[in-house]
Amino acid sequence: MSLGEEQFEFAALENVVIDDAFWAPRMRVNREITIPLQYDRMKATGRIDGFDLNWTPGEGQRRHQYHDSDVAKWVEAVSCSLMTHPDPKLDALLNEVVDLIAGAQLPDGYLNTYYSVMEPENRWTNLYDGHELYQAGHLIEAAVAHFRATGKTSLLDVARRYADYIDRVFGPEPGKKRGYCGHPEIELALVKLYRATGSDRYLKLSKYFVDERGRQPYYYDAEAIARGQDPSGQRAKSNSYEYMQARIPIREQREIAGHAVMAMYLYSAVSDLVREFGDEGLSSACHHVWNNLTSKRLYVHGGVGSTRSNEGFTTDYDLPNETAYAETCAAIGLVFWAHRMLQNDCDSRYSDVMERALYNGFLSSYSLDGTRFFYENRLASLGNHHRQEWFWCACCPPNYARLMASLGQYVYSCRGTEAAIHLYVQGSVRLDMSGRGVTLRQKTKYPWEGTVRVSVETEKPLVFGLRLRIPGWAREAMLSVSGKQVDIEERLRKGYVRIEREWSAGDTVEIDLPMPVERVRAHPDVRADFGRVGLQRGPLVYCLEEIDNPAPPHRIILPENSKISAQFESGLLDGVVVIEGDALAADDAGWNEGLYIAQERALKPCKIKAIPYYAWDNRQPGQMIVWLTVGG
Amino acid sequence: MSLGEEQFEFAALENVVIDDAFWAPRMRVNREITIPLQYDRMKATGRIDGFDLNWTPGEGQRRHQYHDSDVAKWVEAVSCSLMTHPDPKLDALLNEVVDLIAGAQLPDGYLNTYYSVMEPENRWTNLYDGHELYQAGHLIEAAVAHFRATGKTSLLDVARRYADYIDRVFGPEPGKKRGYCGHPEIELALVKLYRATGSDRYLKLSKYFVDERGRQPYYYDAEAIARGQDPSGQRAKSNSYEYMQARIPIREQREIAGHAVMAMYLYSAVSDLVREFGDEGLSSACHHVWNNLTSKRLYVHGGVGSTRSNEGFTTDYDLPNETAYAETCAAIGLVFWAHRMLQNDCDSRYSDVMERALYNGFLSSYSLDGTRFFYENRLASLGNHHRQEWFWCACCPPNYARLMASLGQYVYSCRGTEAAIHLYVQGSVRLDMSGRGVTLRQKTKYPWEGTVRVSVETEKPLVFGLRLRIPGWAREAMLSVSGKQVDIEERLRKGYVRIEREWSAGDTVEIDLPMPVERVRAHPDVRADFGRVGLQRGPLVYCLEEIDNPAPPHRIILPENSKISAQFESGLLDGVVVIEGDALAADDAGWNEGLYIAQERALKPCKIKAIPYYAWDNRQPGQMIVWLTVGG
Repeated sequence: MSLGEEQFEFAALENVVIDDAFWAPRMRVNREITIPLQYDRMKATGRIDGFDLNWTPGEGQRRHQYHDSDVAKWVEAVSCSLMTHPDPKLDALLNEVVDLIAGAQLPDGYLNTYYSVMEPENRWTNLYDGHELYQAGHLIEAAVAHFRATGKTSLLDVARRYADYIDRVFGPEPGKKRGYCGHPEIELALVKLYRATGSDRYLKLSKYFVDERGRQPYYYDAEAIARGQDPSGQRAKSNSYEYMQARIPIREQREIAGHAVMAMYLYSAVSDLVREFGDEGLSSACHHVWNNLTSKRLYVHGGVGSTRSNEGFTTDYDLPNETAYAETCAAIGLVFWAHRMLQNDCDSRYSDVMERALYNGFLSSYSLDGTRFFYENRLASLGNHHRQEWFWCACCPPNYARLMASLGQYVYSCRGTEAAIHLYVQGSVRLDMSGRGVTLRQKTKYPWEGTVRVSVETEKPLVFGLRLRIPGWAREAMLSVSGKQVDIEERLRKGYVRIEREWSAGDTVEIDLPMPVERVRAHPDVRADFGRVGLQRGPLVYCLEEIDNPAPPHRIILPENSKISAQFESGLLDGVVVIEGDALAADDAGWNEGLYIAQERALKPCKIKAIPYYAWDNRQPGQMIVWLTVGG
Repeated sequence: MSLGEEQFEFAALENVVIDDAFWAPRMRVNREITIPLQYDRMKATGRIDGFDLNWTPGEGQRRHQYHDSDVAKWVEAVSCSLMTHPDPKLDALLNEVVDLIAGAQLPDGYLNTYYSVMEPENRWTNLYDGHELYQAGHLIEAAVAHFRATGKTSLLDVARRYADYIDRVFGPEPGKKRGYCGHPEIELALVKLYRATGSDRYLKLSKYFVDERGRQPYYYDAEAIARGQDPSGQRAKSNSYEYMQARIPIREQREIAGHAVMAMYLYSAVSDLVREFGDEGLSSACHHVWNNLTSKRLYVHGGVGSTRSNEGFTTDYDLPNETAYAETCAAIGLVFWAHRMLQNDCDSRYSDVMERALYNGFLSSYSLDGTRFFYENRLASLGNHHRQEWFWCACCPPNYARLMASLGQYVYSCRGTEAAIHLYVQGSVRLDMSGRGVTLRQKTKYPWEGTVRVSVETEKPLVFGLRLRIPGWAREAMLSVSGKQVDIEERLRKGYVRIEREWSAGDTVEIDLPMPVERVRAHPDVRADFGRVGLQRGPLVYCLEEIDNPAPPHRIILPENSKISAQFESGLLDGVVVIEGDALAADDAGWNEGLYIAQERALKPCKIKAIPYYAWDNRQPGQMIVWLTVGG
């Protein structure tokens, strides 16, 4: 189908340059440190060698059901990185890994290093938690990225053979298995494969998986019985399959539920299908669930998933800070989903969420030096929660690497003679405006400063519409075109200012997004944040670390009207704007051994200092807090 | 050994009368409603019939490892109740159950309805979580209570035979098993059996179990290996046996850890042994652990155990409210332990904690009508946590029943010519003062009013010391003896005023403990309560329920200096003093679909009403909160 009026295509990664002082250095660390380190860790743990089906695990190595996808995400990360930053060493590593992957494909197309070796007899017998189709999905995504980056079809052909085989095994037709994977992922991968190849069997298969999900009687029940097991155990464990968003069909879903990463991947695919099929039922479910998520279940740092117990969602407004799960992969999944919603409907409600997650709950996951990462991104810590070098279940690190390497594609969109800028990042994009090349160039110190200068480069003057996002946090935005003030209110639609005119080379748009320090409050039903404020400046959520403050951050009180101000510190944490202010600290002098007393607490005036949340836990360990107690 | 200078004996239950308007009606409900209901539930679920080893479980019934102790606690409850309130019907039920229990004893003395029938070959093979010695402990406690109440030795003889057999099986001597039970309980039961029978083999066995606990190599490891299992699984599950206070020997323990009920029972036994042996090492451990518990890990309502995950302790100052576990049995166990510490050392630090638990986190467990109970006593609720009629694991209800029926023994102590009043409860006690009978009579409307009149009844004038507790919450206490004011400061020692004089019949002590409504604050390191206050009046902790308030309690803010006052409402919740005051409520008008905003919150003045915590969830379901946000 053709694109709807509000539908955009995101600018392809290879056409985007990011050369700012904020993201570009992180992307460089990603390429030069993180991606090679991940290769080493995957090599050491047998994840890479495992693609040799004759390989024998050494000390500390083994085959595992989750390993293939770790490698696949890494292949995707390297491919994306090569699209913008050619690197012979990485290219060589990539070739080696791609060859290994291709070599693990069985004659019938099947490719799974765990099942092929360890449990060949159990292929497709446990979609509930065997993760086979999930692994396949990541291989397909990797193949598409590899093809786009290198033009080579070596891995794409492998993926197609595998997908063709899967299409022969699964589907509504008689004789096929009517199953779908416990962990969604292949659904969005198949849409990518369809778009890369034009073969609509992949699109149909994706839609089948989505439509089948949650249908009763449950396939997972039937499958368990076929394995000789009582399905009541897995039903209880997964809350009647709500854990994997399969309790009821997707068209009936109204709340975000279950495992957060699964939910994000699933709804990303659903958004893709909404775009491809214009399906009203799926679109309606998407909107209801999105609204539930963003109005009741989203952390201020863009993380999602409140509890470790299901790695996912609980109830409305249940957003504990110290025990927040907010898995890195879930923030990444939210970026995927928001990005897809945004291409379907150019509305800043999606780009605001995408920005919130990117600058905070996603960026926090890796240490500044690119060597250690958080699986969980908590909003308060006693000083005992730190980034690790690797995890037994290592889904998050290569997921970070692939999103970081592909960041460019989240910045701009285009359709016909209409362009949109979603994120303010210094750099440029080459756009094809109905056959005419146009370059948009951003100059900005975002997120430290809110001034952005967009200049247009075009051979000949061209009429096109340019949409510029006015972030939800920017309450006093100003905008001028080639020096002439524009009335934002008048031109604002869905959070974007649209300027349609004949643009000539050298035309500029100046955007000024003032960034006062703001005290953010959560909805009063968020019990964990009631009576508290968060500090935010521009897109960045701040936190207090013990090292910068005169008292443990949990004991600090920020009076409603105390002075706070922001300044750039070039020597701190690779250069950050810090927030400083006047506050009060509760003292425990006089408590002796007491736990509860009836006296008013003793408060001492003090100076506090907050740093961007993403940069916490890069220095000496100590307490950290995002939500500060109000009062005084 | 002889008693130390500060050691007391608690007044025996049969010598204490409670005839007040607060506890006496609850004790009557316990006798007339709760205990018979528990019998019915235990009958219906097979717990009672299970003592017939030939019994075949019917629909919904089964044998289970935990069942014997439920019945044993019930036997103890009935026995205690009969000591103060003879009741032919209960007596008949008791006889029936005691006969059944006796009939389940095997010729060698073993008595366990689960293992004897279901796994006879596995007797004593899994002390780690088989709970056999725990069950035995409760049978022994029941037997001692039954003996004291009825003078019959029928059950005591059974218990002795069982204990003698256990003593032959366990111990440090060659050929015996060097094990100890995963769930402490038998240790304190054996001390009771020693005291009831005078046979010190039980005392020695108790001491053996306590001394052996936590010794390496671990018995639980050896036992697992003997079962053909790898002990690493159970080690990981129980955090190197910390779950059952067995990671290190008790003498080395400094922090309260692991399962809360286990810990309370264990330290109760350790306190008994300190008393019996004057053991410095055990005494020191007891004090360190007590201090850690009460200064860092005790809820304001006297509950203990912060999390469901281990039904126990976590870290210092980690006292979440909405997810508090605070199992009823743990509050009961804390009363046991505090009571023992108090008899060893007449210090109000113990009786203050005992009172806190009794009036709040213990009393809350049963509904006012005595039919439903809480296993978990949370300090905040969204309105979805309610008392239940019964639980699969029903340790708490009969534990409540036995403590409620034996409440009298927690009120007074005596030694030689020295008496102590720990709790203010209208009623009386007959004391033996070195051979001379003295009756102390309390007249009071405690806990609603703080005036207590203690009158002395004695045939002839007698010199004795009387200690009267000045509760920690009573900051303006006044005391007069037969009309003459006493300087409390001058006579206060360890929280008790001591008056030694020649007492004659008709002498009175008037105690006035003013009960202003107090705003209680938690130590600033208790993150969950920071910026919050609790309301307390006298010994009672208060809470806000949604039904009494104009806004959901989570949204209410109590300004530091707002007016609050207390008044008795006879028609509410069987008659309670309520607290009313001026506060502010946060509104969600204007939030639309927003979750985070940068505006100051909208607050509306409102009137609030708080009820005693113990009485919550006796009306329409709704939100409940103990800790109110401060601010304004």
